Amino acid sequence: MGRPKVAILSSDLIATAAMDLVSAQGGFTIPELARRLKVSPSSLYNHVSGREQIIELLREKAMSEVRLPDLTGPWIDVVGDIVRSYYRSYARYPRLIPLMTAYPVGSHQAVAMYDALAVTLAGAGFNAEDTLRIITLIDSFVLGSALDVAAPAAPWGDGLDAGPELAAALATGAAKSDRAADAFEFGLVVLLRGLGTP
Amino acid sequence: MGRPKVAILSSDLIATAAMDLVSAQGGFTIPELARRLKVSPSSLYNHVSGREQIIELLREKAMSEVRLPDLTGPWIDVVGDIVRSYYRSYARYPRLIPLMTAYPVGSHQAVAMYDALAVTLAGAGFNAEDTLRIITLIDSFVLGSALDVAAPAAPWGDGLDAGPELAAALATGAAKSDRAADAFEFGLVVLLRGLGTP
Repeated sequence: MGRPKVAILSSDLIATAAMDLVSAQGGFTIPELARRLKVSPSSLYNHVSGREQIIELLREKAMSEVRLPDLTGPWIDVVGDIVRSYYRSYARYPRLIPLMTAYPVGSHQAVAMYDALAVTLAGAGFNAEDTLRIITLIDSFVLGSALDVAAPAAPWGDGLDAGPELAAALATGAAKSDRAADAFEFGLVVLLRGLGTP
Repeated sequence: MGRPKVAILSSDLIATAAMDLVSAQGGFTIPELARRLKVSPSSLYNHVSGREQIIELLREKAMSEVRLPDLTGPWIDVVGDIVRSYYRSYARYPRLIPLMTAYPVGSHQAVAMYDALAVTLAGAGFNAEDTLRIITLIDSFVLGSALDVAAPAAPWGDGLDAGPELAAALATGAAKSDRAADAFEFGLVVLLRGLGTP
């Protein structure tokens, strides 16, 4: 009795194959996914209800490395730690981001993170309306920053007719191997300072 | 002599067709573009050098409605006005955003906007390194916020197991027809406040 030659289809295998397609080409279709897994499209539907559920599996995968800190510390440190972990997690999958914002959030891991943010911000004294706005700001900043990770090493074309101020600014980035991560950390400090006191 | 029955191919027609494909399906290939324009792929190359140049034409199109304010006002107002105009421009084409960050910037309109930001920030007293970080923060915030415009009307799935703080925050968004634009404006104020004084 040898081991089975064909991996048994599971939602986990489906998610891994879908993530490979997204990383390679920025998206996936059900027929492409079935071809990659060497199964028929209909057998996929024995494991997932459809495209929307697969996208939730991808969100779950991307969020699975978000580590929530102890929520009892100073709120500004707690929010900063959550945002850093959220960024590190999505920076691994920049091509996933457009799919994430185009579909409703439903994954358990995502809800746990947003819950932690809402509890922390409400505890700090922000009202419900500002809590949602701050969560939206964090989402926009993190996802925009993670997209920047997929930017070319030289995000500015050669021979641009930039003025001296822009040219001087760009030169400081060209000298940094971690330009995107450096800018993210700077932006996070600006954002937290701007939130001020509730 | 009637008018010609077939529109003469131009880089403008190519850009319009490429934008239609991006809006409909999130991307384009040269063969798809040629099919849509009812020409051969090789005739496209008489007008554009390739995919990268088409993407620059799309960037130019998206940036064409950015209005640069008089740069002599208070720097914080000038930066705020540029960021608002940049956001309004990209909010029309949320599906274009992943393509924008994946290719180097080369368009004249984009350079003019980044130049205006760099001149304003340098004039305010920010050094070259922070000027680039602030421009990167603005890019991440604007592009992330514009992606949010493409989010579903109810960006959170039904039946989420959200805690009371998150549920209360989400309820304030459900009541707003302009949830994304409202959050953008809030975020911009936070960001400008966080920049503080150079």
